[in-house]
Amino acid sequence: MRIVRTIEHLRQLLREPRRKGQKIGFVPTMGYLHEGHLSLIRRAVKECSVCVVSIYVNPKQFGVREDLSRYPRDIKHDATMIEKENVDILFIPSDNVIYPNGYLTYIDVEKISDLLCGKYRPGHFRGVATIVAKLLNIVLPDVMYLGQKDAQQAVILKQMALDLNFSVCVHVLPTVREKDGLAASSRNVYLSKDQRAQAPVLYRALKSAANHIKAGERRASYLNGLISRMIRQYSDGNIQYVACVDAGTLKPLKTLKGQVLIALSVLFGKIRLIDNVIVSIKNQGKF
Amino acid sequence: MRIVRTIEHLRQLLREPRRKGQKIGFVPTMGYLHEGHLSLIRRAVKECSVCVVSIYVNPKQFGVREDLSRYPRDIKHDATMIEKENVDILFIPSDNVIYPNGYLTYIDVEKISDLLCGKYRPGHFRGVATIVAKLLNIVLPDVMYLGQKDAQQAVILKQMALDLNFSVCVHVLPTVREKDGLAASSRNVYLSKDQRAQAPVLYRALKSAANHIKAGERRASYLNGLISRMIRQYSDGNIQYVACVDAGTLKPLKTLKGQVLIALSVLFGKIRLIDNVIVSIKNQGKF
Repeated sequence: MRIVRTIEHLRQLLREPRRKGQKIGFVPTMGYLHEGHLSLIRRAVKECSVCVVSIYVNPKQFGVREDLSRYPRDIKHDATMIEKENVDILFIPSDNVIYPNGYLTYIDVEKISDLLCGKYRPGHFRGVATIVAKLLNIVLPDVMYLGQKDAQQAVILKQMALDLNFSVCVHVLPTVREKDGLAASSRNVYLSKDQRAQAPVLYRALKSAANHIKAGERRASYLNGLISRMIRQYSDGNIQYVACVDAGTLKPLKTLKGQVLIALSVLFGKIRLIDNVIVSIKNQGKF
Repeated sequence: MRIVRTIEHLRQLLREPRRKGQKIGFVPTMGYLHEGHLSLIRRAVKECSVCVVSIYVNPKQFGVREDLSRYPRDIKHDATMIEKENVDILFIPSDNVIYPNGYLTYIDVEKISDLLCGKYRPGHFRGVATIVAKLLNIVLPDVMYLGQKDAQQAVILKQMALDLNFSVCVHVLPTVREKDGLAASSRNVYLSKDQRAQAPVLYRALKSAANHIKAGERRASYLNGLISRMIRQYSDGNIQYVACVDAGTLKPLKTLKGQVLIALSVLFGKIRLIDNVIVSIKNQGKF
């Protein structure tokens, strides 16, 4: 595995594979890798001739009151982990490489960046869209792999890639979970023992909602209430939002139909956990 | 010359030259081509193996009160003109191809988009940055050719290309002028006979300022006053701005130094004309 810190070096390494028409897969990460990242990386290695992983904790996607400085980092451990997965190139740029002095350009994916998590993290998705556009231009991958846990991020980045005509396929892979159902996240390490014990209620509540949908429930308000009540009953978590939205457009739904994303964000102390499920509503005629 | 209307077709035509490592040159235009465009096209043809010209009147860079519907168009004439120049591919996308339903993504180059023309055309450079980013992703050229007449646009697009890591060189070529000095522009056809006769004062005033600089003048306020007085004396033009700014950052200067852009925008009736000169200030020690 080559560890690369400059854009020029990365481009140089990719020139030959690109000329040969080899498929380049790309997994953008903020490091502190977990099984979720590894599932993306394994897929990229399997499907592509060249697999590039980036690790960059992007300051532009953290709000002023957010946890940039506390975001967990362990590059050495990350590098060891992904070397075992046969990753070809690990790109670890510094802030100077990504945002040199005089940096001025930002990308907005309007409307869908202001919903759900965007309401609570102004500027977050602007930062995400901007860094990913930069990385796409640097790596020029054929496929980019993203995790379903960050559902809104995946929708926004797919929209951006489409709108700005990036020549990339975006593959979104299922959320990887701990044995008790908690979605894998770099932030989980910051949960206290109690919080960690309570946190699986998020996924239990989402699954419970999915079961109600299977049984015929279609009212978003009912489902949101159900999920919220479960979380309040079984945890000290502070709910930011619970929402049933269209999985493609993120538009809020009153009555469920089509592909539905049920998403939530809950604060355990200062730790913000998100999770979601996607449910397909079959057309059942009258209900 | 191939005339291409879809992104897929364009990409397909460029696949082979790119695989062979041939240099691809790109000239983005809004059509109604004049000698200014031709100078860019000729340079692209001369320097590159493949020359792509795009013609697209980008609605997103016109304000609500601006002249989108009145913007001059003559695709047939344009196509004939550039065929003679040995252009390889003319890309003429429709609005549906460029901004399909559900389009949401915009690019802002902050600060420098709000100065000079940006003050009078809110959203204009957002539209310009967005369409050019799209075209760069579609064409993936090695070199993009722009005209110095649109000085602010050139600075903004260079900054965008740098910031977003587009792998493209941006070449900015000198303004092409009519015999009497008026900068070539698609909008010139809309000038009345009187306005057309008066309009060359813009360049005369800029040259006069440049001469004063050669003679030692360094005060921006004096030069702005000189230019404004000349324009008012010799035309009915309505001055939007006259400014001496740093040619790289577009920051206003009080005392001239380094590379100075002297830029202006003047309304002749509803026709907005812009022009500029760049002057190098030699370090003359004490003055």
